[in-house]
Amino acid sequence: MNKDDKRTLASRRGFLQASLAGGAAALATPALTAEPNPANLPPNVADWTRMLGEGVAARPYGKRAKYEEHIARRDVSWLTASPQSSVSFTPLHEIDGTITPNGLCFERHHSGIAEVNPTDYRLMIHGLVDKPLIFTLDDIKRMPRVNRAYFCECAANSGMEWRGAQLNGAQYTHGMVHCVMYTGVPLKVLLNEAGLKPKAKWLLMEGGDSAAMTRSLPLAKALDDALVAYRMNGEMLYPENGYPVRMVLPGWEANMWVKWLRRIEVGDQPWHTREETSKYTDLMADGQARRFTYLMEAKSVITSPSPQAPVNHKSGFTVLSGIAWSGRGKIKRVDVSLDGGRNWRTARIDGPVLEASLTRFYVEFDWQGQELMIQSRAMDSTGYVQPSKSELRKVRGVNSIYHNNGIQTWLVHQNGEAENVEIA
Amino acid sequence: MNKDDKRTLASRRGFLQASLAGGAAALATPALTAEPNPANLPPNVADWTRMLGEGVAARPYGKRAKYEEHIARRDVSWLTASPQSSVSFTPLHEIDGTITPNGLCFERHHSGIAEVNPTDYRLMIHGLVDKPLIFTLDDIKRMPRVNRAYFCECAANSGMEWRGAQLNGAQYTHGMVHCVMYTGVPLKVLLNEAGLKPKAKWLLMEGGDSAAMTRSLPLAKALDDALVAYRMNGEMLYPENGYPVRMVLPGWEANMWVKWLRRIEVGDQPWHTREETSKYTDLMADGQARRFTYLMEAKSVITSPSPQAPVNHKSGFTVLSGIAWSGRGKIKRVDVSLDGGRNWRTARIDGPVLEASLTRFYVEFDWQGQELMIQSRAMDSTGYVQPSKSELRKVRGVNSIYHNNGIQTWLVHQNGEAENVEIA
Repeated sequence: MNKDDKRTLASRRGFLQASLAGGAAALATPALTAEPNPANLPPNVADWTRMLGEGVAARPYGKRAKYEEHIARRDVSWLTASPQSSVSFTPLHEIDGTITPNGLCFERHHSGIAEVNPTDYRLMIHGLVDKPLIFTLDDIKRMPRVNRAYFCECAANSGMEWRGAQLNGAQYTHGMVHCVMYTGVPLKVLLNEAGLKPKAKWLLMEGGDSAAMTRSLPLAKALDDALVAYRMNGEMLYPENGYPVRMVLPGWEANMWVKWLRRIEVGDQPWHTREETSKYTDLMADGQARRFTYLMEAKSVITSPSPQAPVNHKSGFTVLSGIAWSGRGKIKRVDVSLDGGRNWRTARIDGPVLEASLTRFYVEFDWQGQELMIQSRAMDSTGYVQPSKSELRKVRGVNSIYHNNGIQTWLVHQNGEAENVEIA
Repeated sequence: MNKDDKRTLASRRGFLQASLAGGAAALATPALTAEPNPANLPPNVADWTRMLGEGVAARPYGKRAKYEEHIARRDVSWLTASPQSSVSFTPLHEIDGTITPNGLCFERHHSGIAEVNPTDYRLMIHGLVDKPLIFTLDDIKRMPRVNRAYFCECAANSGMEWRGAQLNGAQYTHGMVHCVMYTGVPLKVLLNEAGLKPKAKWLLMEGGDSAAMTRSLPLAKALDDALVAYRMNGEMLYPENGYPVRMVLPGWEANMWVKWLRRIEVGDQPWHTREETSKYTDLMADGQARRFTYLMEAKSVITSPSPQAPVNHKSGFTVLSGIAWSGRGKIKRVDVSLDGGRNWRTARIDGPVLEASLTRFYVEFDWQGQELMIQSRAMDSTGYVQPSKSELRKVRGVNSIYHNNGIQTWLVHQNGEAENVEIA
């Protein structure tokens, strides 16, 4: 905690006393302040204090409390051709901090979850190299490795908002993003093993799923910070996130983070695969498509309050929270407006601030019960400022699906419920 | 990645070519380097590339690959009075990075896992305060909160090594430590709500389990960095780790991180509970016991190679990895010896380096197949250096169970198997 935060927290008082209607109760009965006497426990002492619980042997791998099991990824397979070619969304409104738990990371598949047997897993590197190589999983685990927390965002995240569709909650508007700590081998280490020929300029990355997902990657990124990753948050990747090996391309669109990675071919030009021609291009107003738009620009969203996370008190001390991220570097500042963009205040950023990683912000304020139009606006370490949706449309038109990083607005009603709106 | 690491990784080459006996194979058949033609796939193409996988709807909450399900906490309930008063250990040799996944965090219970219903959960603050308060979980979630990754280590971690027991693996010798990102309210914020009376000097923390775990806490720590935490790695605490609310005391012994926290009493002196008198004290050679020894000093352990993670190749490029931590601050440096402490080299630290948090280190070296005596030695930001076990015994005798932060030695045999040894 830095000094400013300490001051902020220490100088406040009366979160509850002054303002909470249904908040923490002052003790009415002095008897309750006496030392508890086990022999004297009243009959309403909770079961968990009266009885032995389950022992350590019962849960070799932990699981959530049953009261939390409703918190889940939500899919839209009713909207897509099949559940195998579909999406599920991270419940952003139900988590906090900057790390997404492995079980709640959004999914996007093109032919379902490849169930790769790690013993039979192979990664081939070939093409314009001195020595084509095939790696087993054990080989990859024996290479020098690094640990980095990165956000992973689908280029189509918030895509339905381009033309004004207003999905009802941050999980659906922004839930195709997650952030975990990856462990993996820098791709340049593997390429160095194979030896690049002088003409090498592009790579093809191919997945082992039955869609054989393929994307072209410029060599500069491969030699910069690309990782061939096999762990997330310490444990092996989950199957839906590419077990046992996926590509990690910090700050770039998730479609390129090829899962179940089985082949890397080195060439001298892009391959123009389906996923970089008919898909994952940005159709401009003039009918031309921008291509190879890899970078995910600075973006943010308020996760609470939000349509799935209404304010449950009538007025008083309120914590607003959200996440911000930028493919260009670190988040430098987040501003928040409570009145639809007329006035802005700088949010308190809390937790680690890392390159191309989710950053958590908070604004604490006394809510008087009035209607709010809440917005967040991220600024990254390059000085880039997240644009409004209308600014974005001026430049990019309304044909796009991908790369919508416009400012999101939630209208918070006097009853605390929130909805997705757009300011004209 | 800093420049030194970049140089280290970029200047190396030949991890596999030069040295791997059973490593990545060079491609023998030019045919394999041709573009694959789906119509021509050989019959041995893997099932996962030939068939559609499961869709997104199947897994609202993700789970590990079936090939990873053997990775688990291991308990020693055969050694303890019951599984309810026992321990399970984090599989340190099977994870990497600095974050422990929630399902693999070690457990220590005194009367089993309290299954607290969050609706009925209450936290009472009383004693030497202006206004005693009872908080619901919703109240706590409405307070200003912070996100911090901290290690949590049982004071008895490595305890059986004091007198020379040599448990067979890092999971058993050092597995009572984990590191997650907590979200919680600074305790000082809650105390500020209640208002401390001038005589306030100590706090009693009480758990809601049927052991009613109680420990005394000096006020200075409570007003410094103590957290009343309810999330780990973004999601709510797991039941075995204190759902819905536990105390988090950065750098201090885990026994004080009271789980299922239900009561905080403010007083003017310690309570001298069972857990700070007959237990969690350090019996010295002269029969006197050191008490209130909260701080966990700098410590480290090599997690691979280790008895549960042998070297699987006969010689060549080898990655040694481990974790280091200190309750006093950040890890500044880790040194590693391959020859039982005669020669030391500085390890490459990788990943975030945070206050009172697990820090990951690596040493990459060419192993010639000889016997190794591997050790790691942590130094923290205060300059404190992890001692040898014999240095520790000189000062503390051999009666202790708690606070063993001595240097661990693994003997790696020529066949790659490792065992727990102690150097005389």
